[in-house]
Amino acid sequence: MLDQADLDSVFRALADPGRRSMVERLSQGPASVSELGRPLDMSLAAVLQHVQVLESCGLVRTRKVGRTRTCSIDSGVLRSAEAWISERRALVERRLDRLADYLASTAEPLDVAIDWPSPPDAPPGPPESR
Amino acid sequence: MLDQADLDSVFRALADPGRRSMVERLSQGPASVSELGRPLDMSLAAVLQHVQVLESCGLVRTRKVGRTRTCSIDSGVLRSAEAWISERRALVERRLDRLADYLASTAEPLDVAIDWPSPPDAPPGPPESR
Repeated sequence: MLDQADLDSVFRALADPGRRSMVERLSQGPASVSELGRPLDMSLAAVLQHVQVLESCGLVRTRKVGRTRTCSIDSGVLRSAEAWISERRALVERRLDRLADYLASTAEPLDVAIDWPSPPDAPPGPPESR
Repeated sequence: MLDQADLDSVFRALADPGRRSMVERLSQGPASVSELGRPLDMSLAAVLQHVQVLESCGLVRTRKVGRTRTCSIDSGVLRSAEAWISERRALVERRLDRLADYLASTAEPLDVAIDWPSPPDAPPGPPESR
């Protein structure tokens, strides 16, 4: 599980569209730094800087073989950030469900005779046969 | 669903431990600004600033009645941020599962006779009776 400082840096890493696009690309499989940068309109230095942010918070691991640095994603870190949000979201939704149940159980039943109008085009039928 | 700029601001809002503590408090029910600030060691002005960040990204809604501003959480925005992470995490895990299946299916079966040692304390039995 991530501690508070880890959560700070993971959410901060995800708060950038370029870094999210890198996480999206890596969710489909490992990629080199230059592959990650290809769809983004930024210099290789800027791409590397983003990769370093993703690496320092643990979302991405990199491995250098020869001149190529290959990046891959750590699904455990993604899962921990997801868990933080989903636990709070579940609490809110459970509370709202309980509130809805309470309101339904205490609602006054409608105790009025409703005089439904007959449909305007109803064919005239024998008045007493129904 | 949140667009890229919304996701930027939601994740940026969650990247602060004070604001996450406010979201945690609000997941248990609405609270006034001063209630939100009580467990945090910060001025009311700082608390208000954090509330404004949470409000501007949609995570929190506020309503002022008299002199009290009451805050509540928008679970839909939490859910959208959670969905962004969980979709990527699911992709990564599915890919790793497929990789594991592939490796298992292509593994060479062990084709050697294994001479299991008999347990050291096995009682001597009649050699041919089993």
